[in-house]
Amino acid sequence: MSDILGRTGPNVHIYRNVTIGRDVTIGDNTIIYENVEIGDGCFIGPNCILGEPLASFYHEKHYENPPLRIGRNSIIRSESVLYAGSTIGDGFQTGHKVTIREQSQFGSHCRVGTLSDIQGHVNIGNYCRFHSNVHIGQKSTIKDYVWIYPYVVLTNDPHPPSECIQGPTIDEYAVIATGAIIMPRVKIGRDSLVAAQALVNKDVPPFQVVAGVPAKALCSIRDIRCKEGKLENPYPWRNHYSKGYPWQDGYDNAEGSSHPNPPGSSDHDLRPTNL
Amino acid sequence: MSDILGRTGPNVHIYRNVTIGRDVTIGDNTIIYENVEIGDGCFIGPNCILGEPLASFYHEKHYENPPLRIGRNSIIRSESVLYAGSTIGDGFQTGHKVTIREQSQFGSHCRVGTLSDIQGHVNIGNYCRFHSNVHIGQKSTIKDYVWIYPYVVLTNDPHPPSECIQGPTIDEYAVIATGAIIMPRVKIGRDSLVAAQALVNKDVPPFQVVAGVPAKALCSIRDIRCKEGKLENPYPWRNHYSKGYPWQDGYDNAEGSSHPNPPGSSDHDLRPTNL
Amino acid sequence: MSDILGRTGPNVHIYRNVTIGRDVTIGDNTIIYENVEIGDGCFIGPNCILGEPLASFYHEKHYENPPLRIGRNSIIRSESVLYAGSTIGDGFQTGHKVTIREQSQFGSHCRVGTLSDIQGHVNIGNYCRFHSNVHIGQKSTIKDYVWIYPYVVLTNDPHPPSECIQGPTIDEYAVIATGAIIMPRVKIGRDSLVAAQALVNKDVPPFQVVAGVPAKALCSIRDIRCKEGKLENPYPWRNHYSKGYPWQDGYDNAEGSSHPNPPGSSDHDLRPTNL
Repeated sequence: MSDILGRTGPNVHIYRNVTIGRDVTIGDNTIIYENVEIGDGCFIGPNCILGEPLASFYHEKHYENPPLRIGRNSIIRSESVLYAGSTIGDGFQTGHKVTIREQSQFGSHCRVGTLSDIQGHVNIGNYCRFHSNVHIGQKSTIKDYVWIYPYVVLTNDPHPPSECIQGPTIDEYAVIATGAIIMPRVKIGRDSLVAAQALVNKDVPPFQVVAGVPAKALCSIRDIRCKEGKLENPYPWRNHYSKGYPWQDGYDNAEGSSHPNPPGSSDHDLRPTNL
Repeated sequence: MSDILGRTGPNVHIYRNVTIGRDVTIGDNTIIYENVEIGDGCFIGPNCILGEPLASFYHEKHYENPPLRIGRNSIIRSESVLYAGSTIGDGFQTGHKVTIREQSQFGSHCRVGTLSDIQGHVNIGNYCRFHSNVHIGQKSTIKDYVWIYPYVVLTNDPHPPSECIQGPTIDEYAVIATGAIIMPRVKIGRDSLVAAQALVNKDVPPFQVVAGVPAKALCSIRDIRCKEGKLENPYPWRNHYSKGYPWQDGYDNAEGSSHPNPPGSSDHDLRPTNL
Repeated sequence: MSDILGRTGPNVHIYRNVTIGRDVTIGDNTIIYENVEIGDGCFIGPNCILGEPLASFYHEKHYENPPLRIGRNSIIRSESVLYAGSTIGDGFQTGHKVTIREQSQFGSHCRVGTLSDIQGHVNIGNYCRFHSNVHIGQKSTIKDYVWIYPYVVLTNDPHPPSECIQGPTIDEYAVIATGAIIMPRVKIGRDSLVAAQALVNKDVPPFQVVAGVPAKALCSIRDIRCKEGKLENPYPWRNHYSKGYPWQDGYDNAEGSSHPNPPGSSDHDLRPTNL
């Protein structure tokens, strides 16, 4: 099936002022609105919409679509909708049916799983991984190397509905497990772990594990053991997990990253498994 | 891009007995099955399905599609699937990938966010707002001006699986925060607030705040303060929040509403911010 | 509208080596990649993707799509994406926008609701019913006649991220209610009931009810009463609920099942309501 690669499928609809790099694949029925820029080597799946117009399109007579930029070697899977007005780094990957609204900034090498819903006006670092069905509210800040698991929601309104919108901040290497809800303005510290189904309504210190509704401090991440005994210390996870990270086979893999010196690279905790 | 407006895109498939009003836009690849009626000024995004046939279509030889009616000036965003057999008021808006099954009644000016899943056989008032990924089970009743936040589920089976289906009732101005689950038959009182991640298994009185798993009474909504001090009293929210509501610029905005005298209009708590 | 049945809609894109049985319907814009086999009498809705290529497709030069087999008389609703490399039994039904990844084995007569996300590498029995928005992590095992309700997640990583993936096992007739999260390696016993919003981090014995975050034993399923008094004993549910099950009108309905002698058939608890 490799003859699909680098081609444009049937019934693709491309509007004016679209820039498409070299070796780009565009799947059947995909729509690309005005002012979209797609980097070299991208794969855009079928039934995608790139450059979806903002809400003002429906009532502003002289609406102009703000630019959407997608970095090189990205894979956007089928039925994903990316709004106009966002900037996405190289090596980006999505699952299916992802929605990314306007004014989303993604660093390089991020992955956003199937059905995830990025509400826009967010700032996301490099090498972040969101699993399926993650919901990131507006005004959220997520730093490098963060993991977010299915059905996690980052909220932003302390007393809904209101105009007092302020999202959470998630620091480097933090892990937020399945179904957790992070309340507005909360800061999730570096290398911390939020347990599944937790409701986090106050700041989490670095290296802390929190759990429960509402979430309470449980222990240090260094106290966690692997019940199967396969790993002596599962946390910090970056000491044993390197799949797809710049510390995997040396930093050559990080080429194209907008982050030439990833935070992990100078960290004393960092012991790549393959070195 | 305003040249899209009022036009029908390529590869649209329209079946028999479809009525389309004036100034209607229909996006690429949208399918409109039999007996659909679309009001003037509607925008139907790409890849939508309107009048999706009911389950009986697959086995009934003489199946007939019941009518789907969509009110004037509605915006149905891409990949939404609206079943046959529902009635939707004017000024309706959806996000992307919304599913609305048969026998759903929506008043005017409702909004249903991306990925929300309305299971049908529901009765929903005017000016209700559902954020992303809201799941409304069958036999639910939702009155005017209700807010429902992401990943909220209204359930309907007290001992699943069974045929004893009965949904919750949500009264006017109630707010249900992210990730809450409302159990069958529960009544959520007017102006009450259900906290994020709550599991509500008994009735909530008007003006009450409830939280926890299972949810317990916490305080009155009038006891809630804005930590940033921007608002003296965040609740009742209709005292400070008017974006898109009929009390925004006087009731002219409510034109086309099937609710000529919205409940809020005669309420002594109602102090529009712009008067 | 019955003239749709048995036909192939416009703009369907079928790749090489696809086998399509008799009386198969294929909706508009559906894409069928290489090595897909569709059984007799299937209905494939519009905008579906069958045989979606695996992750290795994007970088392996000589990638070959593993076979996807869909059993007879299945209904795959619109926008569903089924990956290559899975085997699905007869009488399968999906809602809209379902994702099923590679190496998913489904028995016969399973139903998977709208927006559900089956992550692949899973083994699922016969007559299982997943409601909307169910997330099944890799390496999960689900036996016959299991019910899973909306927003349930089966997780698989005891200390994420890691390579120590091991999913839960759900035994026959178990019911997992809305929003529950099942932790890795946990075994949910036969005929047990997990309450809504529960976080289950240890094994649940057969016939047990568990609830809470984390979940604790509450009572036996036999202690549950129907508040409306319609049913004397709502559990075991198979004593009163037979809609679509092989015990409905005798076992003739189970024809085509890969499970000729369903577990329930020899159970002393099984008292079909219609016998």
